[in-house]
Amino acid sequence: MESETKSEIIDATNRVLCEHGYAGLTMRKIADESSLTTAAIHYHFDTKEELLNAFLDDLIERFKTELASEASDPRERLTAFLDAVFTPTNPDADGFPVAIMELKAQAPFQGLFRERFLDLDDMMREAVAEIVADGIDNGHFEEADPNDVARLVTTTINGSHVRQVALGEPLDETRHLLENTLELHLGWRPGSEVVA
Amino acid sequence: MESETKSEIIDATNRVLCEHGYAGLTMRKIADESSLTTAAIHYHFDTKEELLNAFLDDLIERFKTELASEASDPRERLTAFLDAVFTPTNPDADGFPVAIMELKAQAPFQGLFRERFLDLDDMMREAVAEIVADGIDNGHFEEADPNDVARLVTTTINGSHVRQVALGEPLDETRHLLENTLELHLGWRPGSEVVA
Repeated sequence: MESETKSEIIDATNRVLCEHGYAGLTMRKIADESSLTTAAIHYHFDTKEELLNAFLDDLIERFKTELASEASDPRERLTAFLDAVFTPTNPDADGFPVAIMELKAQAPFQGLFRERFLDLDDMMREAVAEIVADGIDNGHFEEADPNDVARLVTTTINGSHVRQVALGEPLDETRHLLENTLELHLGWRPGSEVVA
Repeated sequence: MESETKSEIIDATNRVLCEHGYAGLTMRKIADESSLTTAAIHYHFDTKEELLNAFLDDLIERFKTELASEASDPRERLTAFLDAVFTPTNPDADGFPVAIMELKAQAPFQGLFRERFLDLDDMMREAVAEIVADGIDNGHFEEADPNDVARLVTTTINGSHVRQVALGEPLDETRHLLENTLELHLGWRPGSEVVA
């Protein structure tokens, strides 16, 4: 598939998903949101699930790029990580976190979705564990198990996502909480390198 | 409404929700799962949303009863709290956590669902904050902000719910993580009063 066509289909999927949710996502609506026909979309993706798998894959790739930091100081990298996860990916679309929550609720029935969410979790945990290990090596962070800290961070991020959708709670509430907890674990508070 | 009829409708709703999910929940299926007609169910609940509101309310009430502990030692009460939240409410129904996740994803569109999830969160946070405050007063726990610890506990529980549904991760993974974190905050590890 030409990557331009693929991008166009994925962008249209994103818009339809944010506006109509998982149940309302149809090839027809995606065609209406793009310059392609439903036949052309079906040619590239047999099913709605394959299309959403490509959508999640694209999301993970973009997030990976966003997380790739130029900084070498693990403190800056940890703050940049929190900035990336607690900044809305799709600020114009209120429906985006809801749509992702719906796809998570589908994961027990859609093996491809579950694989993508596991990929995303692995990617995030590896990124955090590496930063924490570097920070301990450099003496910036206190001794801790990098994998335990990484699990704590991703689980808290998962919690912030539910709270945003179910309770309408701002993401910053959880970010603040996570910063407190990281300070206890690492002896260092994300964001405090700016002040120092 | 007689409380027996209400109970029967709510039990049938629970079964249909676990088996067919939110999208598949109809008054017809609830009638099939109970001794009542669809007309009788409609007489008690105008809409599917009102019925699900009553279902969530019932869930919160039952959970509240489960959390009411006889123990006076805050350490025992904290361990009992974790036992209650990390033990499946509905062990026979794999679909239960998925159904609750679907209702959470509906909360932005269904004001009643959001109110119930806020009630549940308030109830859980108050319970934890009270236990933590008592434990600090008694000298069992180190100094900490009870409300911050309570928020940490509920956010982590929210995270465990998503991870169970989206990733198929056992709840015990998160419980272990939360025990580690509580040990850092309170200087005491839930469950350790059994060994001591």
